[in-house]
Amino acid sequence: MLVVKKFGGSSVANKERIFNVAKRCIEDYKAGHDVVVVLSAMGDTTDELIELAHSINPNAKKREMDMLMTTGEQVSVSLMAMAMHALDVPAVSLNAFQAGMVSTSSYGNARFKRIDTKRIQHELDARKIVIVTGFQGVNKYDDITTLGRGGSDTTAVALAAVLHADKCEIYTDVDGVYTADPRVVKNARKLDAITYDEMLELATVGAKVLHGRSVEMAKKYGVELVVRSSLNRSEGTVVKEKVKMEKMLITGVAADKNTARISAIGVEDKPGTAFKIFNTMSKNHINVDIILQSVGREGTKDISFTVSEDDLEPALQILEEHKEALTIQQISYNRDVAKISVVGAGMMSNPGVAAKMFESLYNSRININMISTSEIRITVLVDEKDIDKAMNAVHEGFALALTD
Amino acid sequence: MLVVKKFGGSSVANKERIFNVAKRCIEDYKAGHDVVVVLSAMGDTTDELIELAHSINPNAKKREMDMLMTTGEQVSVSLMAMAMHALDVPAVSLNAFQAGMVSTSSYGNARFKRIDTKRIQHELDARKIVIVTGFQGVNKYDDITTLGRGGSDTTAVALAAVLHADKCEIYTDVDGVYTADPRVVKNARKLDAITYDEMLELATVGAKVLHGRSVEMAKKYGVELVVRSSLNRSEGTVVKEKVKMEKMLITGVAADKNTARISAIGVEDKPGTAFKIFNTMSKNHINVDIILQSVGREGTKDISFTVSEDDLEPALQILEEHKEALTIQQISYNRDVAKISVVGAGMMSNPGVAAKMFESLYNSRININMISTSEIRITVLVDEKDIDKAMNAVHEGFALALTD
Repeated sequence: MLVVKKFGGSSVANKERIFNVAKRCIEDYKAGHDVVVVLSAMGDTTDELIELAHSINPNAKKREMDMLMTTGEQVSVSLMAMAMHALDVPAVSLNAFQAGMVSTSSYGNARFKRIDTKRIQHELDARKIVIVTGFQGVNKYDDITTLGRGGSDTTAVALAAVLHADKCEIYTDVDGVYTADPRVVKNARKLDAITYDEMLELATVGAKVLHGRSVEMAKKYGVELVVRSSLNRSEGTVVKEKVKMEKMLITGVAADKNTARISAIGVEDKPGTAFKIFNTMSKNHINVDIILQSVGREGTKDISFTVSEDDLEPALQILEEHKEALTIQQISYNRDVAKISVVGAGMMSNPGVAAKMFESLYNSRININMISTSEIRITVLVDEKDIDKAMNAVHEGFALALTD
Repeated sequence: MLVVKKFGGSSVANKERIFNVAKRCIEDYKAGHDVVVVLSAMGDTTDELIELAHSINPNAKKREMDMLMTTGEQVSVSLMAMAMHALDVPAVSLNAFQAGMVSTSSYGNARFKRIDTKRIQHELDARKIVIVTGFQGVNKYDDITTLGRGGSDTTAVALAAVLHADKCEIYTDVDGVYTADPRVVKNARKLDAITYDEMLELATVGAKVLHGRSVEMAKKYGVELVVRSSLNRSEGTVVKEKVKMEKMLITGVAADKNTARISAIGVEDKPGTAFKIFNTMSKNHINVDIILQSVGREGTKDISFTVSEDDLEPALQILEEHKEALTIQQISYNRDVAKISVVGAGMMSNPGVAAKMFESLYNSRININMISTSEIRITVLVDEKDIDKAMNAVHEGFALALTD
């Protein structure tokens, strides 16, 4: 059996944790399996390197940022190999170049193009544990790239796909995927299994347990993932194509406080005005999330939408610049809002889910600002101060705490 | 004109020094030259990484040590590129793999086999300053190697050789090569020029200004070196094949306190005994320096030799183990000794140099324990407590403080 195991930065933050990870990998190795380990940089290394770079040049080029940041994972993998050698197990560390991880050239946000597994296969054949740097690739010019935050998950899934791994385990500091953030919802329940689509929607709306792109890739290549804790032996959550239908309509609730609402008020009510607003946003690389259009006074309409808080200032500036061309009479915004989403494949065949969610919020006297839905997700914008209450209300409303 | 400039770890230890180096390189660039910069790891980074590794595994494999340590130079070169970009000058950082620095596989002590200059040439043609990681190579398996301590000098010389550079400048924290260590001999004089052979002998006997192997390579490929300070504009010292003969018999004096004497007393006086002793040492990777053999009592002889202090304990252990086979009656040693050497191409044609040296030491009442000579060097073993007095006496004796 071939197992790919990925450990994040906090799992290798110091000597004790490095040995803890080494031992877990060695268990699999001694059971006769082939083991590929993907590591992130130790603890806060990546943030420290970014700070160092910004002290030299606040607008450092992405190529040089990638050259700098990838040293972090190279340190992790070499130390892990040393730890395994100290435990008398053959192991070898490989960086993205040695592991044949060929990526596109978009520094800071690269994607894998192909992986040449020859070296990894050769080392596995020699019965070594292979330790690969996560988060990084090499482009066709032999330059080093990074995949963006959370990219180590993607590295693990990509390797599992090309190596036809039997298992791909993503180790984190939580036990798995929960029906809601356990720090907010006390009786949140760990899920045994979840579909790729549900996981993807949850990742998109604020659940930080898995990087969205890695879930996309896992779905595309049919790599079954297990999310589990590096600190205990809990079974974790399986992420796969189909999950045995449970009685639950929805799988989980997620919240995202990093959101702000912008309203363009009194826009001329004729075809193309909405298109022009969102085209202007898009050209300036501002991601717009929920959109709501309502009828305004005297042949005008009001268009509201949400953006991430980081994008609020630039978005307002752009709207102000184009105010006339976009026929906007007035611009307003609100930073103190938050999104709450319910996700579940079960809702596709069940039209009552939205109503149930609204009822739960209504019963807790929580005001709904905006609504957005996908096939398997309903997202609602509420006041930020209400978000924890909203999470609990919805979690309760769908009886997610009940064990199946 | 193509200039290769090498800066050590202390020259890039912090933000201010990085910008200082960047500016010096940019001066050459703006004068129209092609500039290749070779950097070591920042400040004490290499030592810190070694310490980190040893905390995980005191006997870490050299392959993994090299994988770990080479991250240090990668950090330096990327930060330097960012600094140059901040000063609006095009620059690119390259690690050993990208710069085509192919080496042998002896991890921790590799040698360059060939350098594929295509990428460097391409970047120079695009009028970029090219910043290359010193100290490291890549072997034929795509694994990362290091050249051993001081290896960045070798990287600079190797690049200067293959790129047919017009100049190779080695920047350090001293003004150049001195007739003696200025911290010990107050009126030591900076040399304008010195030959490869003299520099090589000085490097071997304790002068730390240049790595011996880099001087060897510079001699082999006829690369003229300039040793100069990164902190001021002093002209530095040129290292080349032939230096205009000055009146001086010798070029410099160097001391080495890292030495210990071992004596094998009462060895059987028959052919092959000395060979057996040094063959045993060699097999155990112990480097023997000065050797002295004297007649002992009753058909025996005494054999003394020096080793570095690190090698003293293992050397004594080995002798003890083989005491009988080597027919040694008694083993003694002395850690409190030091070597003082005078070096100079002038002594080849002048037999009075040794006598002059011994006279200087005698006049200062310094006892000579052992003597060793090469064509252009005389080394004498003295008590460690006398070494500073000896340095000054010899420096004075040869009138090295006089300007020419």
